[in-house]
Amino acid sequence: MSSLSNIEPLTTRYDPATGILSGGRLIERRLADLRGCFHDLAAFERTLEQGNPLVYSVTAVEPADGEGDLHYGLGVIQPGAVGIEYFLTKGHLHTWRDAAEVYIGITGEGVMLLEDEATGEARMLGLRPHDVVYVPGHTAHRTVNTGQEPLVYLGVCPARAGHDYGTMQRRNFSHVVIKSDVGPQLVRRP
Amino acid sequence: MSSLSNIEPLTTRYDPATGILSGGRLIERRLADLRGCFHDLAAFERTLEQGNPLVYSVTAVEPADGEGDLHYGLGVIQPGAVGIEYFLTKGHLHTWRDAAEVYIGITGEGVMLLEDEATGEARMLGLRPHDVVYVPGHTAHRTVNTGQEPLVYLGVCPARAGHDYGTMQRRNFSHVVIKSDVGPQLVRRP
Repeated sequence: MSSLSNIEPLTTRYDPATGILSGGRLIERRLADLRGCFHDLAAFERTLEQGNPLVYSVTAVEPADGEGDLHYGLGVIQPGAVGIEYFLTKGHLHTWRDAAEVYIGITGEGVMLLEDEATGEARMLGLRPHDVVYVPGHTAHRTVNTGQEPLVYLGVCPARAGHDYGTMQRRNFSHVVIKSDVGPQLVRRP
Repeated sequence: MSSLSNIEPLTTRYDPATGILSGGRLIERRLADLRGCFHDLAAFERTLEQGNPLVYSVTAVEPADGEGDLHYGLGVIQPGAVGIEYFLTKGHLHTWRDAAEVYIGITGEGVMLLEDEATGEARMLGLRPHDVVYVPGHTAHRTVNTGQEPLVYLGVCPARAGHDYGTMQRRNFSHVVIKSDVGPQLVRRP
């Protein structure tokens, strides 16, 4: 059983300027890892020809894995775009579908794309500093950097949640977030 | 079942300067509500004679109550002291003992006092801006404002966690956080 004497780390500390968290496991995703996420395939190949930039990193902290435990992570999405589509995370459902997640915006300008697995309903919600976004269970979620600076945010979810990337990779999000004259817009995938 | 279409609120926004959260239920605790928490009873009565100040508030957001859901809250502890003991929260265990909680420091200077229910082990952990503190299950926790400004922080826990205040009210925390020349110190309750 997890208790005060065997949890590690009890404390971490993040630097909002660099997006570095003092503990946890660093996961990095480069553009080539995101094949299939962007709708404009030609723009994707064109962008990839110019290099394979870091798109985002997540530092995952998993102090314990019991039923009542929590995991958290610091996400950092770099600014950038593929065609008119902003840099984004792969997006996932939780393996344990009932598991929710709380996201907290720290620095930068972004949005979250939420899609109800059952109904297909899609929502775009702001993720700016001091925003707290609730991702309900059974909801695919993807984070998008719509600004000029790195987007830094924290996510907290039940330790049991798990990550199911496969389902959304096969099905894809029904909507994309694109640049427009009036700012980020949610449109049906072309 | 909770889903994208029936969760309210999906988004809240906090103001770090005022400690106001845009949604949720506000709970306020004044000094008279904290009888028994401070070790110096004479100082407590003396302070109370001068008024019954607000000590802290929590704005609790409970979007859904399913097994995988989460609750979160914004806490704001005012600066102040009773004798040499800083203003603090009542402190609690989770009714569902296995439930952990993640605390995130936003503004101000504070500490968390953690106490393992089974072993009595006590720990004092810093809660400054950008600190993330993991409160394991089976651990009583109290937050303490050791600074000159309001201490503002977020807490996220499983929706099922629940609050058990009674156990720590009867037993009391074995340690207190006091002012000293070298800063906040954790000492055994006199």
